[in-house]
Amino acid sequence: MSRRERLLAPTYRHFYEQPLMIERAEGVWMYDRDGRRYLDAYNNVPILGHCHPEVVRAICEQSRVLNTHTRYITEEPVRLAEELLATLPQQLDSAVFTCTGSESNDLAVQVSRAVTGGTGFIITDCAYHGATDVLAGLSPEEGNPLGAGVYAVHPPLRSADAERFTADVARCIERMRDDGVRIAALLVDTIFSSDGVAAEPRGFLQDAVRQVRAAGGLFIADEVQPGFGRLGETMWGFARHDVLPDLVTMGKPMGNGYPVAALVGRRGLLESFARTRQYFNTYGGNNVACAAARAVLRVIRDEGLMLNAQRTGHYLMARLRTLAGRCAAIQDVRGAGLFVGVEFGGNAERAWGATEQVRRIVNVLRGRGVLVGATGRGGAVLKIRPPLTFGREHADLLVEELERAIGAG
Amino acid sequence: MSRRERLLAPTYRHFYEQPLMIERAEGVWMYDRDGRRYLDAYNNVPILGHCHPEVVRAICEQSRVLNTHTRYITEEPVRLAEELLATLPQQLDSAVFTCTGSESNDLAVQVSRAVTGGTGFIITDCAYHGATDVLAGLSPEEGNPLGAGVYAVHPPLRSADAERFTADVARCIERMRDDGVRIAALLVDTIFSSDGVAAEPRGFLQDAVRQVRAAGGLFIADEVQPGFGRLGETMWGFARHDVLPDLVTMGKPMGNGYPVAALVGRRGLLESFARTRQYFNTYGGNNVACAAARAVLRVIRDEGLMLNAQRTGHYLMARLRTLAGRCAAIQDVRGAGLFVGVEFGGNAERAWGATEQVRRIVNVLRGRGVLVGATGRGGAVLKIRPPLTFGREHADLLVEELERAIGAG
Repeated sequence: MSRRERLLAPTYRHFYEQPLMIERAEGVWMYDRDGRRYLDAYNNVPILGHCHPEVVRAICEQSRVLNTHTRYITEEPVRLAEELLATLPQQLDSAVFTCTGSESNDLAVQVSRAVTGGTGFIITDCAYHGATDVLAGLSPEEGNPLGAGVYAVHPPLRSADAERFTADVARCIERMRDDGVRIAALLVDTIFSSDGVAAEPRGFLQDAVRQVRAAGGLFIADEVQPGFGRLGETMWGFARHDVLPDLVTMGKPMGNGYPVAALVGRRGLLESFARTRQYFNTYGGNNVACAAARAVLRVIRDEGLMLNAQRTGHYLMARLRTLAGRCAAIQDVRGAGLFVGVEFGGNAERAWGATEQVRRIVNVLRGRGVLVGATGRGGAVLKIRPPLTFGREHADLLVEELERAIGAG
Repeated sequence: MSRRERLLAPTYRHFYEQPLMIERAEGVWMYDRDGRRYLDAYNNVPILGHCHPEVVRAICEQSRVLNTHTRYITEEPVRLAEELLATLPQQLDSAVFTCTGSESNDLAVQVSRAVTGGTGFIITDCAYHGATDVLAGLSPEEGNPLGAGVYAVHPPLRSADAERFTADVARCIERMRDDGVRIAALLVDTIFSSDGVAAEPRGFLQDAVRQVRAAGGLFIADEVQPGFGRLGETMWGFARHDVLPDLVTMGKPMGNGYPVAALVGRRGLLESFARTRQYFNTYGGNNVACAAARAVLRVIRDEGLMLNAQRTGHYLMARLRTLAGRCAAIQDVRGAGLFVGVEFGGNAERAWGATEQVRRIVNVLRGRGVLVGATGRGGAVLKIRPPLTFGREHADLLVEELERAIGAG
């Protein structure tokens, strides 16, 4: 710890009051230095489970043979593009590979500005879209001020808020017009992770997207969090809302930990961008990254992980709702598949109390060997986002420990 | 090829008139589908040679055990920080890990703005610093317009231009003052790769840096291209000039192909940044990336690759200068270690002729099994930048084929 504090920049944070020192991980379990195991109900990057042997094998085999960039013609990026695009609506027919969700979102911002001629963006008010300079202004979750031309709306965390959300987007478009800002895009994480998870009613994005299109803007679906089957019924979060994005960004779980990410979009849009701008990403679409990402797509299919996410997710949410019935502090349980938010507190006066309570629960659970996180404004929502191999026995353990932690908290 | 054109976005380019389809690579050799081999005198990412077994082993071993992010405490990022900082001046004592050189430069821009309160940047007029939105405005090589507050100077490609360069930087600072722009930083690639390679006289950066500091700005050394011992005598390009940067960015060769990059700086600067801004990079500093980067540092040391870069580089430059004596088209041979530029043409009237000639030479060499690139304004400089395991026999082959190609061109 003291070496870490001395050598790593002060930008680094850790999660817990008692920092967790991890030595190895496998499947849904992480192990500390004393061999103590922790149920991982938090990490979305190892979507197939930690150190999945198929991904490790793909990385090792490809690393021995070739790892070069896309300015030579090689098989892997083309095969990955083929297999990835097959999971998306046919109108989204063109892929660009990057290394991180941040790079994908940054590029989506550049493309949407270039093709619309606009500079205005609508985001949600606790959004997180990445760590580059332009994305800092689109990521108020981090406490950053909104960038120039960026307007924020409150997402419909509760089902009853859907109409309010549509009206807010309409008002945003009007404000842009009044301010003389031309719209470039609506950019949302389709599960609204950092906002505190918003999943129902399905389709609530449709009217917002329609309005943005009518105003000349694009719809960018940030699938870095909800993508790759986590929501159970659909491979991508936007598909739950039955809406077609112009650009889709993806990242985190794409290589189960290997840095690989992508931007997918309509060919026409990317052609229009390419007429005025080059884009090259040295590591983006390198052969090993592509081999890892192809293994991820294969395992999601072969191990039936979407169905498991759906079934375990249903079971987990049902148990959490039962728990909520006995526990006044839980205000709402929401989500889809294995992306679940449990909201504590529930009114403005109690907001700080809820934040404190969630913080304590996260730390108590860590002490009891279960890893979860906090999200939403003020961190009043417990974030549950385990590998998709999470089973009923893991959901049982999680809910039982959560009940104890709430009692303890 | 047709699948590639159909599936990958039109932003993708390839290098040659006859695209090169690569199937495997090892050491300094790349192999096409027919088993034909190509001497790689171009790629700086596989700095230890393609598919170096030590890096492959490190990646495979770590991938099987643990690959998580820096919000848990794990050994690998701390060890990498320790070993990396040991190669840098002691004042540069704090590391942040990212995934790409672009992410490192983007973060350096954010840090330098935050700590100076300035928005002005001085760069070179054919600079390339990365692909994010803010870096596009700092990368005129790509044909992008300069960003707001960005001023460009012409680097001293020939030794005689050093004083002119210093005077240009002084003039830039004055122009900023006149324009009411507060300076944030001087940002240069310390080998001026995309400008056409500028290496001599050593120390030419000192006066420029002194002036920038006096005006309140920082010096950011972009080591993505020259770093990791490529220049032979020093691990980092800025050290050849005996100047101390405030921030150092690094990337490409850091993992010999695994996506890993870093920003290193004085702790005080990063503390000041961290007071107002968070920074987290999901994949940045993941355990496998750190294991790969540690293997790279180890192999550079154990295989004596800096000494090899120095010796082979001397030998190669001497042979190229002899060739230049017989060949009127070669105007200049310059560089350090295994980063060499060969300038063709030489006056404004012949500039297009030189561009055309270099383009033809690059393509003829590809046909004859040698891979090099073009750089500099208009691409009139042949860029030679092989893995650091490049030996005399490879230099001989390169120079002989180059002589034939010039004759053929």
